[in-house]
Amino acid sequence: MRIVLELSYDGTHFFGWQTQPDKRTVQQTLEEAISSITGEPCMLIGSGRTDSGVHAERQVAHFDVKNSSVPPEKYAYALNPILPPDVKIIKSFLAPEGFHARYSAKRKTYVYRFYKSRFELPLLERYCHRAEEFCDEQKMRLAAKKIEGTHDFKCFLAANSLVKDTVRTVYSCEVIVNGSLIDIKVCGNGFLYNMVRTIAGTLYFVGLGKMTADDVAKAIDEKDRTAVGKTMAAKGLTLLSVEYE
Amino acid sequence: MRIVLELSYDGTHFFGWQTQPDKRTVQQTLEEAISSITGEPCMLIGSGRTDSGVHAERQVAHFDVKNSSVPPEKYAYALNPILPPDVKIIKSFLAPEGFHARYSAKRKTYVYRFYKSRFELPLLERYCHRAEEFCDEQKMRLAAKKIEGTHDFKCFLAANSLVKDTVRTVYSCEVIVNGSLIDIKVCGNGFLYNMVRTIAGTLYFVGLGKMTADDVAKAIDEKDRTAVGKTMAAKGLTLLSVEYE
Repeated sequence: MRIVLELSYDGTHFFGWQTQPDKRTVQQTLEEAISSITGEPCMLIGSGRTDSGVHAERQVAHFDVKNSSVPPEKYAYALNPILPPDVKIIKSFLAPEGFHARYSAKRKTYVYRFYKSRFELPLLERYCHRAEEFCDEQKMRLAAKKIEGTHDFKCFLAANSLVKDTVRTVYSCEVIVNGSLIDIKVCGNGFLYNMVRTIAGTLYFVGLGKMTADDVAKAIDEKDRTAVGKTMAAKGLTLLSVEYE
Repeated sequence: MRIVLELSYDGTHFFGWQTQPDKRTVQQTLEEAISSITGEPCMLIGSGRTDSGVHAERQVAHFDVKNSSVPPEKYAYALNPILPPDVKIIKSFLAPEGFHARYSAKRKTYVYRFYKSRFELPLLERYCHRAEEFCDEQKMRLAAKKIEGTHDFKCFLAANSLVKDTVRTVYSCEVIVNGSLIDIKVCGNGFLYNMVRTIAGTLYFVGLGKMTADDVAKAIDEKDRTAVGKTMAAKGLTLLSVEYE
């Protein structure tokens, strides 16, 4: 029996999703909690791995269980009391036929969040990255449009990545301003390692006037990693949702 | 020379504003940082004390300095590098003639923040209180209107308070809904100890159908502490601003 979990976590004190020796990770924390309920070893498959410090408003994962006395929709109730405060299940249910948290995922939406301030603001620092006050959102919006569409996004690929196929479709890349907050919200069929954080860094450079929208289009065209912005800090990134068919 | 500080803090790891023996407080943390710069003992006066766990988006305080080599507006720059991440100065300036952070304050605005969810959500738990999903915002709005105006608010006074004058003016009490978030935003000329958290608890009871708007009006009229809701947890409360003439 395959169980699907929708879950949320504050990434601040996790070394990312994936199990690693001697590190506190989301995957391992959940696998241990699930095993303690099922009495079986657990292998939890997420829709994708999130890096150390990245948050998730809604992540999706699945696991298989041979003999479960817990009805699928009750796993949320069974797991939450034994999970730590920084990772909780929002929903659990029986997987549809052929469902795979990673391979069946069709779209993911991330937000990279900035706030404009001269100084660090304690109430925003945990989930946002501070931007200079003169950052120009209108310029960022123009550049964001250049990222939408199906492109070879090799320019946003982390230098140490071994991925071969770097073509992805970005359905939307929005710059949403709400008071001092600037959200870069990106929805796509998949993202390369560090891609969203590098898109954020590139649009931030545009906001600072260090690059133009045309520079962004050119960097994508020419697959030039050296022509884009830097990879922004993990804490500003949140996985908002994963969609399936 | 009197210096005014506008500051912000995440109250999670502070035992409130006021200096207490062997406790980490906002006042003491700031006084130590200021003394290390001025070389003088520092007595910092806040616009009011916030309780253990209460946050401040914008709090105001002042201190006097005899011989300062730091220009007033530079205190923000001098203090922030030596302050911990959970309290930072937003602005510093020379106090206007006769200014007193506490006695000159004319209005304060607080928000008490709820989120509707069946389970705890890690990304919201730090600054919000979880409300049941069936909480009715429309009913809360009607009851909030009963709180606006000049009233004897004895019904919201903490049992252990020694305050004699319990008349205050609430300029506005709003219930603002944004997705799953419910903000109770209250602006007044001053608040009794625990008053905002008890207003939040009372409106929450109304949202749950345990009280009506008329019950709230009656509790105020009759000064009946036993007729209002409970005092909500500190972490959901944030001081938004303090206004002066």
